[in-house]
Amino acid sequence: MRTISVFQQVSVDGYFTTKDGDSSWTHGGADDDEYNKFVEGNAKGGGALLFGRKTYEMMASFWPTPEAAKQFPVVAKQMNAMPKIVFSKTLERATWANTTLVKDDPATTVRALKREAGPPITIMGSGTIISQLARADLVDEYQLVVIPLVLGAGRSMFAGNDRRANLTLSTSRSFANGKVYLVYTCAKAS
Amino acid sequence: MRTISVFQQVSVDGYFTTKDGDSSWTHGGADDDEYNKFVEGNAKGGGALLFGRKTYEMMASFWPTPEAAKQFPVVAKQMNAMPKIVFSKTLERATWANTTLVKDDPATTVRALKREAGPPITIMGSGTIISQLARADLVDEYQLVVIPLVLGAGRSMFAGNDRRANLTLSTSRSFANGKVYLVYTCAKAS
Repeated sequence: MRTISVFQQVSVDGYFTTKDGDSSWTHGGADDDEYNKFVEGNAKGGGALLFGRKTYEMMASFWPTPEAAKQFPVVAKQMNAMPKIVFSKTLERATWANTTLVKDDPATTVRALKREAGPPITIMGSGTIISQLARADLVDEYQLVVIPLVLGAGRSMFAGNDRRANLTLSTSRSFANGKVYLVYTCAKAS
Repeated sequence: MRTISVFQQVSVDGYFTTKDGDSSWTHGGADDDEYNKFVEGNAKGGGALLFGRKTYEMMASFWPTPEAAKQFPVVAKQMNAMPKIVFSKTLERATWANTTLVKDDPATTVRALKREAGPPITIMGSGTIISQLARADLVDEYQLVVIPLVLGAGRSMFAGNDRRANLTLSTSRSFANGKVYLVYTCAKAS
């Protein structure tokens, strides 16, 4: 069975983007060896990536560029090589290498994917998709990087979930740059 | 100069109460020795406490009771003994031991308190007061305990802050019960 992990950088007040969808505040630290090694290690996981349209378009406009190859050589290579799924009813083509465009309902599609054998699937950004999958009890794990910044307002990937969910902390690690990595696993749906 | 610390238990999605002001989800774990020792150590800090009316009334209805003395003997004794300040324009009397009722503006009052010598001041709960003090650059430190729970909606103590604030991580500690303690210091106001 394939597992579904969410990897998300969040502010101290819990937002993954500003209200306007800006996530540029999660960048920086490209000169931080300790954190870079962590990100590169994550990217070597060998899994597949899953996105909503907005996050996909943002990622697809960056990772295949010479700028990305220069700034993040290891991660760019991995991001371009990994199998990718994008959910969109409006996109006509998905041209970033190794992408499958899916027009069906995310929850139905992911429920079917989870029954198959295969590498783990990681969702990045894509708050709308995450909310839908979380409501359907399809998320196995949240990998959060808490950025030492308060936004004051923004988008929460848990917005619209109308019930509480107990999580289990499985990993915590802090970095010299002030970021904190927290991994929570979700209770199995009965 | 006195320092102002915020001590707050927050959900993984960053809320300190539900929309209805319920914080009962932060309780429990009274039988957890490791976490109890941490809370008792915190309560021994010898500082003063500062509250808004709602949090004050909730705390004042619990800590002086025999139930509190039985369930949390060390912390209850400390909570009752510590000097306390409550901000309220509507309260007529504050009867919990060692409480000073202040009807003036919180930011003005705290700005004056910070110029005095004296023990550190800790704010618990009291989201409205925290927002006012944060906007006025009067908070020196946030001590957060992240509870392994997603609420989906709730009150953020940073709501209404219309600008970003960079924080510095000074402490992180995880507990076997899944709670994570993160301390952030604020950049000094110029």
